[in-house]
Amino acid sequence: MDDSSPATRITDPPPPGPVRRPGGRSAQVRRRVLDAVTALLVEQGYDGLTVDAVADRSGAHRTTVYRRWGDVGGLLADVLAEATGDDWRPPDTGSLDGDLTALNREVHEALTGDPPLTGALIAASFRSPPAAEALRAFWADRYDRCAVVVHRAVARGEAPAGTDPRALLVAATAPVYHELLLLRSDADATLARRAARTAALAAAAGAFVPA
Amino acid sequence: MDDSSPATRITDPPPPGPVRRPGGRSAQVRRRVLDAVTALLVEQGYDGLTVDAVADRSGAHRTTVYRRWGDVGGLLADVLAEATGDDWRPPDTGSLDGDLTALNREVHEALTGDPPLTGALIAASFRSPPAAEALRAFWADRYDRCAVVVHRAVARGEAPAGTDPRALLVAATAPVYHELLLLRSDADATLARRAARTAALAAAAGAFVPA
Repeated sequence: MDDSSPATRITDPPPPGPVRRPGGRSAQVRRRVLDAVTALLVEQGYDGLTVDAVADRSGAHRTTVYRRWGDVGGLLADVLAEATGDDWRPPDTGSLDGDLTALNREVHEALTGDPPLTGALIAASFRSPPAAEALRAFWADRYDRCAVVVHRAVARGEAPAGTDPRALLVAATAPVYHELLLLRSDADATLARRAARTAALAAAAGAFVPA
Repeated sequence: MDDSSPATRITDPPPPGPVRRPGGRSAQVRRRVLDAVTALLVEQGYDGLTVDAVADRSGAHRTTVYRRWGDVGGLLADVLAEATGDDWRPPDTGSLDGDLTALNREVHEALTGDPPLTGALIAASFRSPPAAEALRAFWADRYDRCAVVVHRAVARGEAPAGTDPRALLVAATAPVYHELLLLRSDADATLARRAARTAALAAAAGAFVPA
């Protein structure tokens, strides 16, 4: 859901400080390696992403990269696993329409952001089965975390009891992905809000209560 | 919209008959070449799709293929141009919900069909700018043709005047693409109907009338 999250986290600098706890060096190597993966992917695409190029760029030993990540699929999967492991929570604006609009704006930003990391990861998922599986798991986790948006809406009476959270969230977000990623439409600042409003209206009409 | 259409047309045999009209041979070469493109794309993916492989498989001369299509991007663009040039029309079931459900079933079939040509073409569009542009044009044409579905719904009173055809059609179809192509969910026979029903309910509530 929040595809801006991996981009943000991945470009965060490593935490400063002189203390080297157990695992500190390993975590720093991971940080450098995953930064190299995302930089290469954005700059050169999937074809430029090789274990050797990642090792060169990150300064990590080739054998370390091979041992720990195996191949390009393993590297991409770890980028997405890291994103899945963050502490992201969906927005809480006080209304279903507002929450879905805020969510869609995050999706929109991620898909139109520079560097275009989200699009590059999605494109890579069509070539690497481990990346596809990791992306699937990332999105499943995001939709799970967003279920609270729907629970709050039901509690406020904005949608009937029994509303299926995932179906509502997919309906709200899918048009943003479809327009930007597949139909390749120009970015439209109103798209996020329109798709959110549509889903909220459908939810109020009971569209997401299983028959 | 109707992604089953290219698959169906592309696997159609060439028309029989001994008569060779002007252009007949050229059309037959195109048929064989485009059949070879789709067969190679499905069997070996984008990496197996080269002008030389297409020439070998189709029996066409390499120079003919280079002169007429230029490169792999030109070949993919022509596959999609041929699909755009068909006489497909959207279903007319008598209700908005019915028309959208029938449309979504065509999308669902195309995305889960065997051979998986539609998915392979979409994946290729992430690697070939000419294929991306041709796919964009294909979808723009399909959504244009489907506008009549919305006009009929407005005439029947199922959606208010001023309903934006494209916004409604994208809302109806996007969840099918999103679930099958990006979220990689298992095929679900109810998805087409549910997404159609959601869009029809939202349309009735005025969701697609620009504010």
